[in-house]
Amino acid sequence: MQKHVKYEQAIKTKYPEQVVIAIAKDKKGKANPVTLGWTMIASGEPPMMAIAVAKGHYSIKTIGHSKCFTIAFPTSQMADAALFFGSRSGRDVDKFGEFHCKTEPAKKIDSVLLSDAVANFECTLESQTPAGDHIIFVGKIIASHTNTKPKKRLYTLGTGHKLGSVS
Amino acid sequence: MQKHVKYEQAIKTKYPEQVVIAIAKDKKGKANPVTLGWTMIASGEPPMMAIAVAKGHYSIKTIGHSKCFTIAFPTSQMADAALFFGSRSGRDVDKFGEFHCKTEPAKKIDSVLLSDAVANFECTLESQTPAGDHIIFVGKIIASHTNTKPKKRLYTLGTGHKLGSVS
Repeated sequence: MQKHVKYEQAIKTKYPEQVVIAIAKDKKGKANPVTLGWTMIASGEPPMMAIAVAKGHYSIKTIGHSKCFTIAFPTSQMADAALFFGSRSGRDVDKFGEFHCKTEPAKKIDSVLLSDAVANFECTLESQTPAGDHIIFVGKIIASHTNTKPKKRLYTLGTGHKLGSVS
Repeated sequence: MQKHVKYEQAIKTKYPEQVVIAIAKDKKGKANPVTLGWTMIASGEPPMMAIAVAKGHYSIKTIGHSKCFTIAFPTSQMADAALFFGSRSGRDVDKFGEFHCKTEPAKKIDSVLLSDAVANFECTLESQTPAGDHIIFVGKIIASHTNTKPKKRLYTLGTGHKLGSVS
């Protein structure tokens, strides 16, 4: 049976929610990672993924500048990196400089991959659409990578940035 | 360490993936549910959600007609309904007629809620954007509902439509 409640209460039923780290370079060439839970696959052929980024975030500028971005699936061991990349702004800090996280150059776009991630997807910017206080960026996936060892993805398990793996 | 692989292989690392059931009425007033894994929250204020629907699907017509839709989070006990609603077309069958699933009228839009779901969100169509072989529909959430009892969400656990709960 359903009960009419406030959105803020109803949305607490969403967990576990997947976590990705999107990475785009700013105009100075600094790769800027941001942690996002609002993401989905958007097309099968050609493959595309969508991310929703808050309008004030520095990533709006980095993606707007680069016209490309990486979407990485962090592993369940990468909770600290995900929390750091999600709580600091690339306007103020060089996130990869302050929090060590192994990266390597992307193959087909001017971005980087997270070497220890479950998988990395190289995307060229296909479209951007405003949605309330966010912008939806759709990227066409032009190269894909997986970890050479099987790894588990990271999820948000509940309110208060509780991160971990699911089974 | 990352290995360059085909997209089809890399995307297999995505699981578990959340499942929603989107419902919109066609021009005859028939409520048509469709099961989707490609969905995300798109805005916080006002709250919005996005779904990606394959271009050939009947739901493109129902959402285009209604300009509103429900997004329901099915429970882990609703795998059979999710499989049925995801594998049949509303062009051919009355899905709610053929597969019994308790519904009730939505409060603020001309659609229905799934009475046994974890939660239901009533959305008015905010935008639609083509993305490859899909269309991204963004809905503004104008009413929210939760089950009166705590329930677990349904996820796709792996390839081959393996559905269940996570912990």
